[in-house]
This record gives sequence, structure tokens and C-alpha cells, in this order.
Amino acid sequence: MSGFNDRFLRACRREPVDVTPVWLMRQAGRYQPEYRRLREKHPMLELCTNPELAAEVTLLPLRRFELDAAILFSDLTIPFLAMGISFALKENVGPVVAQPLRTEQDINTLRVMEPEHDLPFVAESIRILRRELNVPLIGFAGAPFTLAAYLVEGGASRDYSRVRAMIYCEPRLWMRLMEILAENITRYLRMQIEAGAQAVQLFDSWVGAVNPAVYRRYILPVMQGIITALRTFGAPIIYFGTGTASLLEAMQETGADVIGVDWRVLLDEAWLRLGYRCAIQGNLDPAVLLSSADTVRAEVQDVLRRAGGRPGHIFNLGHGVLPETPIENVQVLIDTVHAR
Amino acid sequence: MSGFNDRFLRACRREPVDVTPVWLMRQAGRYQPEYRRLREKHPMLELCTNPELAAEVTLLPLRRFELDAAILFSDLTIPFLAMGISFALKENVGPVVAQPLRTEQDINTLRVMEPEHDLPFVAESIRILRRELNVPLIGFAGAPFTLAAYLVEGGASRDYSRVRAMIYCEPRLWMRLMEILAENITRYLRMQIEAGAQAVQLFDSWVGAVNPAVYRRYILPVMQGIITALRTFGAPIIYFGTGTASLLEAMQETGADVIGVDWRVLLDEAWLRLGYRCAIQGNLDPAVLLSSADTVRAEVQDVLRRAGGRPGHIFNLGHGVLPETPIENVQVLIDTVHAR
Repeated sequence: MSGFNDRFLRACRREPVDVTPVWLMRQAGRYQPEYRRLREKHPMLELCTNPELAAEVTLLPLRRFELDAAILFSDLTIPFLAMGISFALKENVGPVVAQPLRTEQDINTLRVMEPEHDLPFVAESIRILRRELNVPLIGFAGAPFTLAAYLVEGGASRDYSRVRAMIYCEPRLWMRLMEILAENITRYLRMQIEAGAQAVQLFDSWVGAVNPAVYRRYILPVMQGIITALRTFGAPIIYFGTGTASLLEAMQETGADVIGVDWRVLLDEAWLRLGYRCAIQGNLDPAVLLSSADTVRAEVQDVLRRAGGRPGHIFNLGHGVLPETPIENVQVLIDTVHAR
Repeated sequence: MSGFNDRFLRACRREPVDVTPVWLMRQAGRYQPEYRRLREKHPMLELCTNPELAAEVTLLPLRRFELDAAILFSDLTIPFLAMGISFALKENVGPVVAQPLRTEQDINTLRVMEPEHDLPFVAESIRILRRELNVPLIGFAGAPFTLAAYLVEGGASRDYSRVRAMIYCEPRLWMRLMEILAENITRYLRMQIEAGAQAVQLFDSWVGAVNPAVYRRYILPVMQGIITALRTFGAPIIYFGTGTASLLEAMQETGADVIGVDWRVLLDEAWLRLGYRCAIQGNLDPAVLLSSADTVRAEVQDVLRRAGGRPGHIFNLGHGVLPETPIENVQVLIDTVHAR
């Protein structure tokens, strides 16, 4: 075993690195045959809640590729288990919430978690992983808007119009829901950091459904609260969303150390808009990995060129690895990033 | 009958108007009881292809509200009927294409339409409507990317990864598909203008799935071709998409007279980015119409304030009227726009 690889953490702090660090959202996923074999034997929720299995799945991509960070294998819905929310994870659909939240009574049923007690397997997975890994381990949680989107809509949606309607119709109810989620997520991520996660990512996957005015009024204050509370623990905080081309400046006001961007923006333009005052993570289009090795190389180089060798770039996809992705193209991606 | 109301056309040309013109995407739609009654008796495709029925549906919202433009009742998929593409329109799902296009052979089966011959009911609807209307009639078509997205993906999708993959994997095949679609759409819109449509809107509803580099290389040239060809006929051209916050400048390079923006951007920021060199259409969040009359009034006034009274603003929603919208709120919206 070679020494600890801290490229990823250095880039989070915008310190110089030898080569650009790279990890991939859903780096443990269906594109890997060994993952598919495990999924045949175990339902998704079992992989997330059994600490040995979660650690094993987390390590799968690290065994194959020279990735610069591991991310705890889990799911955005895991905190729901501790909040009294009944849901199912449907293949190719995502979470389906049994009783979508619509009224004040619905929201008042939500519990505030005691993560060590309610979700002990998460800390246990993290402790196992820290013994095994020689790269940093990233913990994560869904951000309040994205979790609220699932809870109000009842599942994934094309444009979350029901969620937007709740914001306009019942802003106080919305803020109450956001605050309960924020309290849960803060506790959950704090527990992950205390158990050994060396960075955390807040996935606000669907926040691109709102405009900057709504974001600043109904989302930003809650995000600032979470990030301020976590900041004292010293682990870098990555804040990622998709479809956020109009929200980048507002997202930066959360105080996150790293802003994660999807493929819909050009990395150079996004980082310029952020004034280089934070690190940036992204943003190869995951669909590029379905094409030829030459195209993968060219498009990876284009992202690196746009990052301009400036300290503070973490290479990633613009969203998760697609299940149809050929393994060989992931290798080409990583080799191309590290060749610089 | 009062005289012809040309506010909408004047705003398209950025000429001064007495009050801001307003029309709504899906202004003829399920939120209206009289529309729902018609839909109970006739399938969607029949409403689109029977000229008397299409004209009747087009007029429904005009009978109820003081709208400043009518838009031909039709569907983005209607040109598929003339191109040899087999599809169904599924309730709450959208178009489902029987045989998604994947290969060169698939694409070579596409026909180039003779619109007067293949889709005679469209011109006939337009002629009926021009006799009835004292506001301008807008014709429309899907833009090539959005039609290609349905054809390649087989229907609506969350992020059109299969379409993006085709662009990266087979750029020449993609361009061939775009060119066939562009030729069809140009002919189709030209026919609509010749039949009497006084403006046309290109709906590029899903173009927000790509970034500006992909847009400029694989979409913009084709859009420029369509708009250049149509420009000689004198009808203003509106170009609308959703999730286009990173694409606005590139979309303007098409030469469209009006750029339509969704609710994810703030109208003042969007128009500033466009340098006020075109008119702008939008962009109230359709979900606002699910809230109270007071909120509708306040949010409509916010959009008007962002437009700043500058000539060239056409008030619209950021996407179509949602089916759950209370009729009364549509009235409040229109009254608020016209009160200025």
C-alpha cells in the first residue's frame, strides 16, 4: 500500500496538486459487472443498510480504477428511514414515497433523527472504509430542496411543479418542511464526519427546477444554516446540483467549499461566474462515456482545458455514471485526467 | 367586433404598445372545463387533425379571456404524420414513438413532407381561424432538437442521455437527422405562414439538455437555416425552450425575433444577457397559477417590473398552463398584465 493520496482534499482547499483529482458520481454502479452481480443477490436498501456490504460496494470501483476519492455507497433516501417516512426504491424510477407530504399534519409527523441510534450502519460502514482506504472518503446527503421534492411530489418528476406550487401557495409550510429536513441532514452529515468522512457532498439534484429569486428566499437560508453548522468540523463541503445554470452565484452564497456543476454549463464560464472564490467539481457529460475512446479523450481534455490548470478543480461527471457505460471508457477517462 | 388588436405583433417587432400583450402556452387546455368536455368526446389527434375542431379548440380561451394572440391548436408530433413516423399520444406521458430512430437506415426512412398535400387540415384550420380572429394567429412547430429527442429517445425523458449519446457517438448521423427535420419544419412553418399564421413559434422544449458548445456545433447551424429560410416571409419568429439558462446567447444567434424563456431565469437578467437585441417572451412560473389571486398578482407584477416597460416584452408563462390551474387565476393574470 502506497501512502495516503490527498489530491482530492488539496483540490477542495484550492491547494496545488500534481495532477487533477478525479472521482465519479455513481462510480459504484450498474456499469460494473461486479456491482450487477451483488445487486442480483441483494436489494438496493440492503446494500445501503448492511455496513459490510455498503463498504464492499464502496470499494468496488477503487479496486479497478485509480480514483482519488471514495464515496460512501448509500442512497439519498436513507435519512427517510430515520424520519418515519415510508418509501420504496423502484428500479429505473427512483424513490416512491407512500404518502406524499401535502399538509401541515403530514409535515408534523416527521421525526428528527438521532443518527448514531437510528442509522448505526452508516457510521459502521464509514469506520470499515477508513481502515481500508488510502484515498479520502466522501460522505453525502440529499439537500433539503431535493429531499422535499421527493417527499412533496411523491417521487421523481420532470419539473417538480407540485413542489413549486407548495412554495408559492404555502411558503410558511414549505419553510417548516425545509427546516426539519435541514436539522436532520445537519445531524446526519455531522455523524458521518465524526465517524470518519473526510469531505461531504450535498446533492441538490433537482434544485434547478427553481429560479434564483425563489432559491434565495426559500432555499438559500436553510443551506447556509447547514453549511455553517458543518463548517466547524473541518471537512470540505461540496454542493452539487443539476440544471443550475441560473443558480450558480446563489449556490456559492451557501458558503460551500466546492460547487459541483452538471454538463449543461461550460466549466470555464461557470468558474469565472463564481469568481474563482471556491473550488469547482465537474463536469463531463456522462453521455460522452457511451461514445468512442477518442471522443472520451477529446472531451475530457476539453474539460481540463476549461479548468485551465487552476488549483481547485476536481474532475467528475456532470451527473452519475450511466448504467450502459463501457468499463473501458471509465479507464480512458481516468488515464486522461491523470496524464496531465 | 372591435378592430384588429396588433399589440402582440408590435411587441414582436419591439415597437411601443399601450399595454403589454399576453398569451399563454397551452391556453387551450385541460384547465378549461369546455376543453375537457371536448376531449371526452374526441381523442387528441382528432382535435388536431379535424380543421373545424382544431379551430374551435383554438378559439376556446379567446372566448373567455382578453388574450392578445391565438395559437393554433395542434401538437408537436403532427409533422410526424407526414414523415412516416408511427407514434401514439399517451395521456400524462406524451408522444410514444413506435420505433425509436437509432441507425442510418432508420433515419433514411424519414420522408420530406409536402405540407399542403400531407397535412391539409393545418392550412384549413388556419384559414377558418383568420376569418374569426381579431388578434394575431401564431403557428408553431417543434424545433429539430426537440423532435429528434422524441424520435431517438422514443418519447419524453428526464435528461435525454440517449440523444446526447447519439450526438457524441455518431455526429454525422445526428446532423443528417437534424437536416431532415429542419427541411420538414421549414416547409411546415412556411405553409402555416402562407395559410395565414401571422407569427410562428419554434418550440425547442428539451434543448436545455445540452451545453452551449454542443448547441453551437450540432444545433445552431440547423436553427439558423430554418430561421433564415422563414425570415423572407415576414412573420415574426419566436424561439422558445426550457432549462436554457446557459444557452440564451447561443439561441439568439439563430436570428429569432423573440426569445422565449422559462421560469428558471429572471426576465431582467435574461434580457440583459440578450443585449435587448431581440424581443423577449415569458416567464411567469406556471406553478404560481396554483396559488392565491394575491400571489398571482404579485408575481405577475414582478415579471412586469423586470421587463421594465421596455418595448418588446410579450407576457407568457415559462411553460404551458398546468391542468390543475383554476380558471379564475388566469383571469387575474391577464387583468394584471393589462392593468399596467
